[in-house]
Amino acid sequence: MLNFELYNPVKLIFGKGEIEKLSTLIPKESKVLVAYGGGSIFKNGIYDQVKTALQGFDVVEFGGIEANPYYETLMKAVDIIREQKIDFILAVGGGSVIDGVKFISAAVHFQGNPMDILHQRILFKEGADVVPFGTVLTLPATGSEMNSGSVISIKATQEKRDFGGSAMFPKFSICDPTVIASLPKRQLQNGVIDAYVHVLEQYLTYPHKGYLQDRIAESILQTLIEVGPQVVENPTDYTLASNFMWSCTMALNGLIQKGVPSDWATHMIGHELTALYNIDHARTLAIIGPNLFRVLFETKKEKLAQYGKRVFQLTGTEEEIARQAIEATVAFYHTMGMKTKISENAANIENTADFIVNRFEKRGWKALGERQNLTLDKLREIVELSY
Amino acid sequence: MLNFELYNPVKLIFGKGEIEKLSTLIPKESKVLVAYGGGSIFKNGIYDQVKTALQGFDVVEFGGIEANPYYETLMKAVDIIREQKIDFILAVGGGSVIDGVKFISAAVHFQGNPMDILHQRILFKEGADVVPFGTVLTLPATGSEMNSGSVISIKATQEKRDFGGSAMFPKFSICDPTVIASLPKRQLQNGVIDAYVHVLEQYLTYPHKGYLQDRIAESILQTLIEVGPQVVENPTDYTLASNFMWSCTMALNGLIQKGVPSDWATHMIGHELTALYNIDHARTLAIIGPNLFRVLFETKKEKLAQYGKRVFQLTGTEEEIARQAIEATVAFYHTMGMKTKISENAANIENTADFIVNRFEKRGWKALGERQNLTLDKLREIVELSY
Repeated sequence: MLNFELYNPVKLIFGKGEIEKLSTLIPKESKVLVAYGGGSIFKNGIYDQVKTALQGFDVVEFGGIEANPYYETLMKAVDIIREQKIDFILAVGGGSVIDGVKFISAAVHFQGNPMDILHQRILFKEGADVVPFGTVLTLPATGSEMNSGSVISIKATQEKRDFGGSAMFPKFSICDPTVIASLPKRQLQNGVIDAYVHVLEQYLTYPHKGYLQDRIAESILQTLIEVGPQVVENPTDYTLASNFMWSCTMALNGLIQKGVPSDWATHMIGHELTALYNIDHARTLAIIGPNLFRVLFETKKEKLAQYGKRVFQLTGTEEEIARQAIEATVAFYHTMGMKTKISENAANIENTADFIVNRFEKRGWKALGERQNLTLDKLREIVELSY
Repeated sequence: MLNFELYNPVKLIFGKGEIEKLSTLIPKESKVLVAYGGGSIFKNGIYDQVKTALQGFDVVEFGGIEANPYYETLMKAVDIIREQKIDFILAVGGGSVIDGVKFISAAVHFQGNPMDILHQRILFKEGADVVPFGTVLTLPATGSEMNSGSVISIKATQEKRDFGGSAMFPKFSICDPTVIASLPKRQLQNGVIDAYVHVLEQYLTYPHKGYLQDRIAESILQTLIEVGPQVVENPTDYTLASNFMWSCTMALNGLIQKGVPSDWATHMIGHELTALYNIDHARTLAIIGPNLFRVLFETKKEKLAQYGKRVFQLTGTEEEIARQAIEATVAFYHTMGMKTKISENAANIENTADFIVNRFEKRGWKALGERQNLTLDKLREIVELSY
């Protein structure tokens, strides 16, 4: 087990009907920017619930934060906060809105060009001068409601970049599982797979003797396999919705990565597919992940075998189980409605590998992954296998 | 799944060699009370490590906090803090020292009789006027290093009482698994069982559709079964020590109880055996727990069957598996060196049931447990079965 530091001060309020607690969670006398996305909160009643709970607060609204939120969009909110002296931000949305609000929070008082936050991957530590924020989660998937990371897209350069730090934890997050009732099936499918791959990134590396961490990771995978296919058909079932939502939060609230190596190469490659073709984030992960396991089979096969045995109850030799575990993963992704080839998700893809390899080269990235053995040659192989 | 609120701001620093970080964790210019127990920290080198790390701080020492710490002892530390204007407390010890420091922290500025903190079970919420404290864990078992609860004994009345609240979270806890190398086997055995029963109290209730919570609880049980028998023989093995220590913290840092019912009757009854006969806390749990499952079999059998299948891989009818799960638990306790009858741990025990029933009656406690169906009749039956 590796040494680790665990610190997560988010106050998580989980359950039905909890949105009304908002008024007790935001500091009195705050001037609040309510940030949201494309307007689904108007249809599903969450906007009304939030507005009712915020009676008595001075509220400014900022809508239109897109999926894979753009730096360019978020800077508009930064200007509003600076001009109107807003002192609290409430993100009402999924991972994109919450990630966007983290960027807004960090950028308002940032000394220098806010673009540097992304390009230089600035770390915002406790005590940094940021605007405090809370969240009302409307789409379980990313865990952003209980972590301190953020991924932002830059429209001008078609890039996705991440940043974070302990000042980027929400002060609170309200997770009401009933909000998923009105979500489109596609978004529910994406949420399940996003959370599932988050766990795999932190689990499917090499044996590291973090026995408890492994078992907790497997717990989340098993729960997502159990509830995932059902919840997309029955999003009003509270048992399914609550286990789905809680699994998504636990998949990326920092806990399971403590003391163990992690990979994240599937995400790094997947981000490029979103930037290039606007493929849904989760779907890029479902495309890349299995091919990454195939190409890096030799160095991942011990964990693949453990995963196959414990999560899919596979039997056979270690090598057989490890290979079958990849196929079982693909089968699960297909069950969840994923199409696991780039060509099933986008057109004119023949230069994808060249493009991504070139871009990584330009950034000076020579290798990725928990062993830093995913070289640019292997990157090309993974992407080409994914066509 | 029940609604829940999760908030745990403890900064947990986990791993070898981390004690030296103390100087960066305690606020500069603090006057620090270093509180410890019977002096084992002088033998195992931890005292020296702590003193070295605290160079430059104004330090006052308070030793002699006993196992099952006494109110009477702790009040001496309260006086010292008041007299010497100390503004930070560092607990160096196991659950008893840490629980004791929580009481000291709460009592210093408490308006009124500090005994009321225990008798009236005062809740110390965020913002309460308490003395901030951190911990260096020397004995994994209770999870006190990452929770906000405390159990204190009262010498005058032979009672054990608990209190807590979100102001009672340590500011930080340093958990270095190498500290267990010098612990007596008996304390290691107790630590494993203490953590194991902590999980059972939060898990072995009734089916509640918290699928993920159940699986995480089972993860901790499985890890303790895997490492427990080995770690007591090989406490210098870092893999065993680190998984043991992390399991103990995770067993009672609040996470697995979120959204599910919990029991705690085994603890309530066990506390009385410690108060009466000074039986080690963990050993009282090993005595009472299995008999509680036997007496409340009808209302616990569904979870017992799930536990038997998933943790012990038992097969048979649901009823058979549930019964065998109790026996498998007792067998595990025996493997861990527990003696599971009161008479194997103390003499002159014939009035135990009368005494405990009378005491619970006097407190007005009519029933315990997750269904409040552990009545005084059943309490008597459990205690008598334990003779």
